[in-house]
Amino acid sequence: MKKTIITLPGDGIGPEVTDVAVNVLKAACLPFDVEIETIERNFGGSGYDIDGVPVTKETLELCKKHKSVLLGAVGGPKWENLSSELRPEAALLALRRELGVYANLRPIRVHSALAGASALKEEIISGTDILIVRELTGGIYFGEPRFTVEENGDTFSVDTMKYSRNEVRRIARKAFEAAMLRSKKVCSVDKANVLESSRLWRNSVEEIGAEFPEVELTHMLVDNCAMQLIRNPKQFDVILTGNLFGDIISDEAAMLTGSIGMLPSASLGNGNGLYEPVHGSAPDIAGTGAANPLAAVASAALLCRYSLQLKEASEDIERAVQAVLNQGYRTEDIFRGRSGTKLVGTHEMGDKLIRNL
Amino acid sequence: MKKTIITLPGDGIGPEVTDVAVNVLKAACLPFDVEIETIERNFGGSGYDIDGVPVTKETLELCKKHKSVLLGAVGGPKWENLSSELRPEAALLALRRELGVYANLRPIRVHSALAGASALKEEIISGTDILIVRELTGGIYFGEPRFTVEENGDTFSVDTMKYSRNEVRRIARKAFEAAMLRSKKVCSVDKANVLESSRLWRNSVEEIGAEFPEVELTHMLVDNCAMQLIRNPKQFDVILTGNLFGDIISDEAAMLTGSIGMLPSASLGNGNGLYEPVHGSAPDIAGTGAANPLAAVASAALLCRYSLQLKEASEDIERAVQAVLNQGYRTEDIFRGRSGTKLVGTHEMGDKLIRNL
Ligand SMILES: CC(C)[C@H](C(=O)O)[C@@H](O)C(=O)O
Ligand SMILES: CC(C)[C@H](C(=O)O)[C@@H](O)C(=O)O
Repeated sequence: MKKTIITLPGDGIGPEVTDVAVNVLKAACLPFDVEIETIERNFGGSGYDIDGVPVTKETLELCKKHKSVLLGAVGGPKWENLSSELRPEAALLALRRELGVYANLRPIRVHSALAGASALKEEIISGTDILIVRELTGGIYFGEPRFTVEENGDTFSVDTMKYSRNEVRRIARKAFEAAMLRSKKVCSVDKANVLESSRLWRNSVEEIGAEFPEVELTHMLVDNCAMQLIRNPKQFDVILTGNLFGDIISDEAAMLTGSIGMLPSASLGNGNGLYEPVHGSAPDIAGTGAANPLAAVASAALLCRYSLQLKEASEDIERAVQAVLNQGYRTEDIFRGRSGTKLVGTHEMGDKLIRNL
Repeated sequence: MKKTIITLPGDGIGPEVTDVAVNVLKAACLPFDVEIETIERNFGGSGYDIDGVPVTKETLELCKKHKSVLLGAVGGPKWENLSSELRPEAALLALRRELGVYANLRPIRVHSALAGASALKEEIISGTDILIVRELTGGIYFGEPRFTVEENGDTFSVDTMKYSRNEVRRIARKAFEAAMLRSKKVCSVDKANVLESSRLWRNSVEEIGAEFPEVELTHMLVDNCAMQLIRNPKQFDVILTGNLFGDIISDEAAMLTGSIGMLPSASLGNGNGLYEPVHGSAPDIAGTGAANPLAAVASAALLCRYSLQLKEASEDIERAVQAVLNQGYRTEDIFRGRSGTKLVGTHEMGDKLIRNL
């Protein structure tokens, strides 16, 4: 069987890590008689440099047609002064919206071989295993109106945070379904003591919660969540939250682990899947061979699971990631010079992975 | 000379810690011939229980008249199901707005005697000294419109994030002025890659920055800031940010230190000053004598400095806080059973402070 996926390597280290991820993905699917065909397109800042826009209409259509997209990373100082609709991030927002991938899943797991790399004390962080479910196509990222006006000698800018009951119910259901396959706890994060939209959020989550009596539902204010993640990250199983709060909270949680170069994400909805590492484009190390490809590889594992329905191939990839870490292979970002570990480059890490499949 | 301040002890541990703070404040001002007169009012949930509203008009007027307010803490599960305008937080938002205290200053300092209490490794956290300057009377907390409507069988809720150029310039100026007295670095935090209001924020901050050529100005996205605070908190001097981002980032930063029971805040504007601990009302330990009064005491020190212009009395209080910690006195929240330390209750800690003045 042949499966076509779209690859959008993007900027900075994006191309290098995507390359490794595609090789691993192909190798992992082979034993299951699935042949992966990739179609690559320009995207982000490098897309702008070539096409004059960060993403073309044709690319968006192609992604919609083939439904599975593996993305590297976008952005960099080179494109920071472009107007907002030409910036690399605009391509990402357009892609999410066009694909309708409203459910952003970010598994935050501390690899035991790497727990020492966290800024947190090992006893606090080790064993942390959180799934962040972030709403990705609504909230203040897309709410209208958004504008800037001059008035009475002053300038005013407005953004709109908007959620609908059905929008919240839809993402809440994803969180509860995920919790049923894990430790059966959902913590919904909002700012209901101040925001209207958070009160709607809370009520709508409660409604879905009632359909999952086995799942323990709690609510937490976003400021408190920012604290609790540091105080005791192990208290969390599934964290369910909106687009803006999810952006902040998931990056905080990712950094806690000390494994940010390791963390993948999947954005799902409408039968589509967009897969990308949590880390950025790291332009400072692009092309040096120092990039850690494991987050991109783990994203490819999620693609296997959710878009190709190849659960076993997905688990094979995840096991290979564990194996290379246990064998002591480290890219620069996670190398601490400990005995039994060995510094490797981006592609060498890819070779070790394939050997472990 | 006589000075009148309003005290709003509020809920939970609020009354106990305010009591200690007032005693210390009085004792610290005496040598400077300043006699502190306090007028106490109901506020928050306990205000609602007595007066039927979390804050009365009369109390708001009184606070405006006397210009200096020392607040304990508000909130608790008992009042969580009240409608939003009756909840304890509503009183806090009304008070901030009525006083026009747009500049919320949160010094985040790691007490060296307590660095071990942080969830972060000591080498990462020790020496951290950040001043967070949070805009407190604008942004999505107060933006209009805010509403909920039924439409086409769905329910929609809307909040509005709004900033004006003058509003941002005003708070930015506070941050730069503060930076001039510190390490001359301002990091402005926004989400300019997505939000209109953040782009206005960034431009307006730049304008004020140009008036302070000695201060190094950088910009950071809020998601990245949530990460950088964990990776390397010592990189920051002054962090300048809006109301919502400031809420999240300052609580995160406070928890990092392991000293959250120690951190004060001052909210300034229009010649008014509102002083309160960063911690909450901790209803679970209210009345047990376990509460740590040091954040309330440090808030009283800020009141001395900014509202009473008694810089020396303020420094005396801060030195007394250092002294009791160095002498080994600890309330339960910061007691680790180390040799040379001694567990004390809320009021005993107050006595030790006064003895050290
Ligand atoms: C690049 C940016 C628009 C994006 C976001 O804020 O969603 C990124 O931070 C992320 O979390 O994927
Ligand atoms: C109680 C709440 C409204 C308040 C806020 O969000 O401003 C609190 O979290 C704070 O930070 O002072």
